[in-house]
Amino acid sequence: MSRQVKIVLCGLGNVGKALLELLAERGGEIESRYGVRLILSAAVDIGGAAVGNDEGLPAAELLAHLRVGNAVEAFGSFAQPGKTGKETIDEVEADVLIETTPTNLIDGEPGRTHVFAALEKGMEVVSANKGPIVLFYQEIHELARQKDCGVHISAATAAALPTLDVGQVCLAGARLLEIEGILNGSTNYILTRMQQDGCGYETALKEAQELGIAETDPSLDVEGRDTAHKIVLIANRLFGISLGPKDITVEGITKITVDDVAAARDAGQVIKLMGTATRTDSGVQLSVGPKRLEEQHPLASVGGSEKAISYLTDTMHRITVSGGKSSPTGAAAALLKDLINAC
Amino acid sequence: MSRQVKIVLCGLGNVGKALLELLAERGGEIESRYGVRLILSAAVDIGGAAVGNDEGLPAAELLAHLRVGNAVEAFGSFAQPGKTGKETIDEVEADVLIETTPTNLIDGEPGRTHVFAALEKGMEVVSANKGPIVLFYQEIHELARQKDCGVHISAATAAALPTLDVGQVCLAGARLLEIEGILNGSTNYILTRMQQDGCGYETALKEAQELGIAETDPSLDVEGRDTAHKIVLIANRLFGISLGPKDITVEGITKITVDDVAAARDAGQVIKLMGTATRTDSGVQLSVGPKRLEEQHPLASVGGSEKAISYLTDTMHRITVSGGKSSPTGAAAALLKDLINAC
Repeated sequence: MSRQVKIVLCGLGNVGKALLELLAERGGEIESRYGVRLILSAAVDIGGAAVGNDEGLPAAELLAHLRVGNAVEAFGSFAQPGKTGKETIDEVEADVLIETTPTNLIDGEPGRTHVFAALEKGMEVVSANKGPIVLFYQEIHELARQKDCGVHISAATAAALPTLDVGQVCLAGARLLEIEGILNGSTNYILTRMQQDGCGYETALKEAQELGIAETDPSLDVEGRDTAHKIVLIANRLFGISLGPKDITVEGITKITVDDVAAARDAGQVIKLMGTATRTDSGVQLSVGPKRLEEQHPLASVGGSEKAISYLTDTMHRITVSGGKSSPTGAAAALLKDLINAC
Repeated sequence: MSRQVKIVLCGLGNVGKALLELLAERGGEIESRYGVRLILSAAVDIGGAAVGNDEGLPAAELLAHLRVGNAVEAFGSFAQPGKTGKETIDEVEADVLIETTPTNLIDGEPGRTHVFAALEKGMEVVSANKGPIVLFYQEIHELARQKDCGVHISAATAAALPTLDVGQVCLAGARLLEIEGILNGSTNYILTRMQQDGCGYETALKEAQELGIAETDPSLDVEGRDTAHKIVLIANRLFGISLGPKDITVEGITKITVDDVAAARDAGQVIKLMGTATRTDSGVQLSVGPKRLEEQHPLASVGGSEKAISYLTDTMHRITVSGGKSSPTGAAAALLKDLINAC
């Protein structure tokens, strides 16, 4: 007998749609492998919601409806135009919130409201949205603890590259000494191109933008802030601390020159944008910045838009994980993984 | 309030002693981090057992006693000379068997008897011993299912390199298409030396033996059987199959010549001993043998005695894990990890 798990999905952008696709395509497989029957009780976007009956919403039909440009709040008999995320979370009986609204690093909204509303109701939270988690880590952590709920953020911390699971499950019982990560694909692509071809930063950035690897406004990535957000979240969880974006020194890659790259190459090194968290006698020190790595360093060979994380522990020594698809499907796969593991 | 978990430890060789050291050194830390109070109820070796009182055996004192060459069955008031592993498991009330007796690939004993006795009693099993698991996978799996117990074999499948956890937890919900692993440290060391220095197989093997990286009788490693055992166990668990050592084609590295290595290098490739499990239309195909990898392959840069595993999935694409200490402490850390995660 499978266990039913009812989901409210907030946010129907590319990641939300990719998750819908996974729910539609492999619900039966998940039920038979994990004994969990996933039911999409409601889906919400900016203009309103669709709320399912006891069987939930038909994910495949909803996806088809959205893909031709229709809004969720116009989804047949399930349509509830104007219903907000908070109203949906408050009114619909469900076990898990999946939060994929756009990341907002000013006030975390609307994700912040969704996350707090879900935790107040005792729901598990699975989030691809970094905003509320980065800005309100301590408050969210505290409320989750009070309500005995989990907040699962794999999709917000390098998506399909497993970072938190590895730190929590695979290193259980070992003492974590240091975390080093190449956590941003577009900056790693730019640096890799500069190193391979000797081209300048602007040329490599332009190429990355043309290929869709870098954003039109790349500042969050190239200034190191995206890496900072990820390393803060990973370090908070794995070192049991509660730091925010203000507690980390951040340097981006915008000042890296052709000469810097050549000097590193001449010394047998490569330049990588590293997020680092180091346990010290006085706590945990966080930083983001370009570093010159020796060729033997396990992150030195991580090229292109690939990401990777390396954990240094006392008893297991160094464990490095690399790869993971950077795409809406990869992020949705990370959401699905957290959802399955949370149940 | 912590949960008490009572342990019977069978086998007090290097790995068993390293586990004792971890229990002695970080019991308090594990209790505060994971809410689990680990109690060593009994420890057994070839000549007999020591059985603790309600508080269990004092791990630090037992370790000190063993380290100066004393036998466990002479450990003060706890001593029970002549008591076998099976008798201890049958008589002592405990939650978990930790099995670290020497791997025996003929009939799996004495580990086989210990594992079946523990499962019959409804105990969880955590094993560093490959023998019984490789030889009796299906029977053990079936009994564990009937008794609703877990059999945790991280320490038998590349020790501190996380293989099974990554496949089970980090890839949850994704479809696994292929597993490729460099799962044996000594053969990877030999191949790396041949590639770096152009030396022959015999020279590299001798060096590995002098450094303690290869065994005096290296046949299990260099003939590929150790890799085969590990890939069989990993594939069984992750693909949900029940294959044995007879279901895999195995080729070792003993026939690799200086010319083979040079030819690979000239083609921009490296030779690695790979264990591979591939999902096909007709099931899962397993093989072990030397393969030429392109430089860009994520396992190509895994050098020296390091191990690594790479998973190809549909939704997350490729995830590669490398590293992990190859030592009794690394194996004990894998046992401790499984123990914590099993609770």
